[in-house]
Amino acid sequence: MPMSISRPVRVALDAMGGDYAPAHEVEGAVLAIRDAGPLLDLTLVGDEPKLRQEMGRVGAPDTLKVVQASQVITMEDPPTAALKLKRDSSLAVGMRYHQEGRVDAFVSAGNTGAVLSASTLILGRVKGVSRPTIGTFIPAERGVCLLVDAGTNVDCRAQQLYEFGVMGSIYFQKVMGTPRPTVALLNVGEERYKGTDVVLEAYKLLESGPVNFIGNVEGRDILKAKADVVVCDGFVGNIVLKFGESVPSFLRSLLRSAADKSTVDKLSLGLARGAMRRALRVLDPNEHGGVPVLGVNGVSIIGHGSSTAVGIKNMILRAMEVANSGLNSHIASALSTPVHVPAS
Amino acid sequence: MPMSISRPVRVALDAMGGDYAPAHEVEGAVLAIRDAGPLLDLTLVGDEPKLRQEMGRVGAPDTLKVVQASQVITMEDPPTAALKLKRDSSLAVGMRYHQEGRVDAFVSAGNTGAVLSASTLILGRVKGVSRPTIGTFIPAERGVCLLVDAGTNVDCRAQQLYEFGVMGSIYFQKVMGTPRPTVALLNVGEERYKGTDVVLEAYKLLESGPVNFIGNVEGRDILKAKADVVVCDGFVGNIVLKFGESVPSFLRSLLRSAADKSTVDKLSLGLARGAMRRALRVLDPNEHGGVPVLGVNGVSIIGHGSSTAVGIKNMILRAMEVANSGLNSHIASALSTPVHVPAS
Repeated sequence: MPMSISRPVRVALDAMGGDYAPAHEVEGAVLAIRDAGPLLDLTLVGDEPKLRQEMGRVGAPDTLKVVQASQVITMEDPPTAALKLKRDSSLAVGMRYHQEGRVDAFVSAGNTGAVLSASTLILGRVKGVSRPTIGTFIPAERGVCLLVDAGTNVDCRAQQLYEFGVMGSIYFQKVMGTPRPTVALLNVGEERYKGTDVVLEAYKLLESGPVNFIGNVEGRDILKAKADVVVCDGFVGNIVLKFGESVPSFLRSLLRSAADKSTVDKLSLGLARGAMRRALRVLDPNEHGGVPVLGVNGVSIIGHGSSTAVGIKNMILRAMEVANSGLNSHIASALSTPVHVPAS
Repeated sequence: MPMSISRPVRVALDAMGGDYAPAHEVEGAVLAIRDAGPLLDLTLVGDEPKLRQEMGRVGAPDTLKVVQASQVITMEDPPTAALKLKRDSSLAVGMRYHQEGRVDAFVSAGNTGAVLSASTLILGRVKGVSRPTIGTFIPAERGVCLLVDAGTNVDCRAQQLYEFGVMGSIYFQKVMGTPRPTVALLNVGEERYKGTDVVLEAYKLLESGPVNFIGNVEGRDILKAKADVVVCDGFVGNIVLKFGESVPSFLRSLLRSAADKSTVDKLSLGLARGAMRRALRVLDPNEHGGVPVLGVNGVSIIGHGSSTAVGIKNMILRAMEVANSGLNSHIASALSTPVHVPAS
C-alpha cells in the first residue's frame, strides 16, 4: 500500500534582503531544510555567485536552488520607487516568481515597506480586502498577541479596522491553531462609547462580523494577552510596537545606573544577568518567525531586518504553515459579504 | 534692613479623592508642611470629622486647615454628571474655593476625568487655548519626558496638537527649569512627510511656533527622552501610557517563569530582587508629583489614584512650584497670536 505523501511546499527566500544578507539567509535556509526535510522545496533569490560561495562555505545541500537577481533593495530605498527602479532586485524577482505560481510562498527580511509594496502591487489583493496589512506578534504574559495593523496604514476607516480584525482572527485560527481566537479593539477604555469616531464605528462592525469579538481593550491589556488579536490603525500600532521594542534597552540602562550606584547591587545584578537574559528571551523577534502580509493574493512573510539564521529558519517554516493553511480562501470567504450592522 | 519674605503659597488638597483617602492625603499633607515650612499655607477639603480624626492620629500641626465638604466623587462616577450631582463633593468645593481666589492651587488624586471636568468648567480656559489637556511624565534613560496629551482629548485637530506643544514647552521651561526644552511630534517616522493628515499639519504649525521644535520622534524615542515634550493626541497618549504602566508587571511575570524553570536562576534572581526594585524605582509615579491640567485659569494638579503619602506630598510641592511660575500668563502670551505658517 503506497503511503500518502504530501507535496513539498515550495518557498522562495529573498537572500539579499536582511541586514546580514546573504550570510544569515543562507545559514537559515540550511537550518530550515534540516528541520523540514523533504517537505520543503527551497529556492534562494539573489546574486548567484555570492550565494554559491556562501552555500559552499556552510555546506548547503544540493537540493537548495538559486534564482539569479542582480540588484538589492536596501533599507534606505524608498519602497515604491525602489521596486520600479530595481526591477532585477531579489525582492522584485522573488515576488514575481511567486506571482507566476512557481513557488507557494515568498519570504524576506528586507525593507518592510518595499516588501509590502511588492506584495500588494505584484500579488494583488484578496477579493473583499480594501487594504493589505501587516500584523506583529507581541509576546505576552501567556502566549502572544497579534497586533494588527502594525504600521502599514496610518489613516484608517472603520471598514479597514474591521477587515484587520477578520484577517487577524483567521490567521490566528488557521495558522496559530487557536480554535476561536478572541478579537478586541485597542481603545482608551473598555466601555463601548469610548474612543474616536472611527473606532466607535469599527466596534459596531466587529461585533456584527464573523469574529469572536470581546469589545475594547486598553494599552495595559496588550502584554496581558487579554485578546489574541488586537486591532488598531497603523499609526497607533507602529508607536506601540516601537515603544515596546525600546523597553529592553531602557531596562538595561536602569540596571546599569543602579549598579553604578551600589557595589552590592552591581554584584547581585551581575550574578542574575544570565537568568535575566533567559527570562527576556521571549522578547526576541527571531522566535516568532516573521509576520505575514495579510490580504494579498499569495503568501508573503516579512521578517525583522536584523534576523538571525534561526529567525530566517523560523520565517521559512512559518511560510510553509501559512501556505498549507488556505488562509486566503478563508479571508475571501469571510469578507465576501458586507457585514450587516443592526439599526440601533 | 527687613528681609524680603515671600508670601506663602496657599494650596487646597482634595482630602477624599484618592484610593487611600483620607489616610494618605492627611499623611502627605503633614509631610509637605514639614518640607515646605512657612512657605506653604495648606487646606484640606473633605469630611471634617473624619479629617480631624485622621489629623489627630498622625499629629498634624495646627497650621493645617480644613474646609468642610460632605460628598465624595468616586473613581466609578461619570465625570461631568458627578460634578452636577455632587455639588458638595470635596472636588467641587475645593475647585470653587480655588476659583474664588481663596487658594493659589488645588491638588487632587481623585477621579482624573472629574478633576479635568471640574478644572475646565469651574476655572475656565486660558485665553487662546482650544482645549485644556493633561500631560504625563514618562521616566526615560536620562530624566523625564512630558507626553501630552496623555488621554484627555481623543480626537484632535492640528491646532490642538500645536497648543499641547506650546503649553508643554512652557511647563517644562517654567516649572521643570529646562531653559530651551525640545518639543517633538510623536509619529511613525522621522521624515516630515510621514503620518496622518492631522499630524502633517501640526508639524507645520509647530515648526513655525514659539517652541524649540525638533521634528518627529518615534515610539522608540520616548524612553530615550529624545525630546523633553512629546506631542500626540489623547488616543495615542492614553494607549502608550497604559502600555508603559503594564511593563513592570509583565517583567515580573517573565522573571517568575524563568525562576520556575531553573533553581539556579531562581536563586540568582532572588538575590538581585532588591537591586532590581531599586533600579525600577524611577517608574513609580509617586516620584513625579502629579501632572498639571494645562490651559485652565488656575493651578490644578492631578495625581495617581493610588498615590502614597509621599506622592501626595510631591503633588503639593509641585503645585507650589506651578503657582510660583506664572505658567498661565506665559501660555496666554504665547497663544495670543495665531501661528503664521509660511506658504510652501
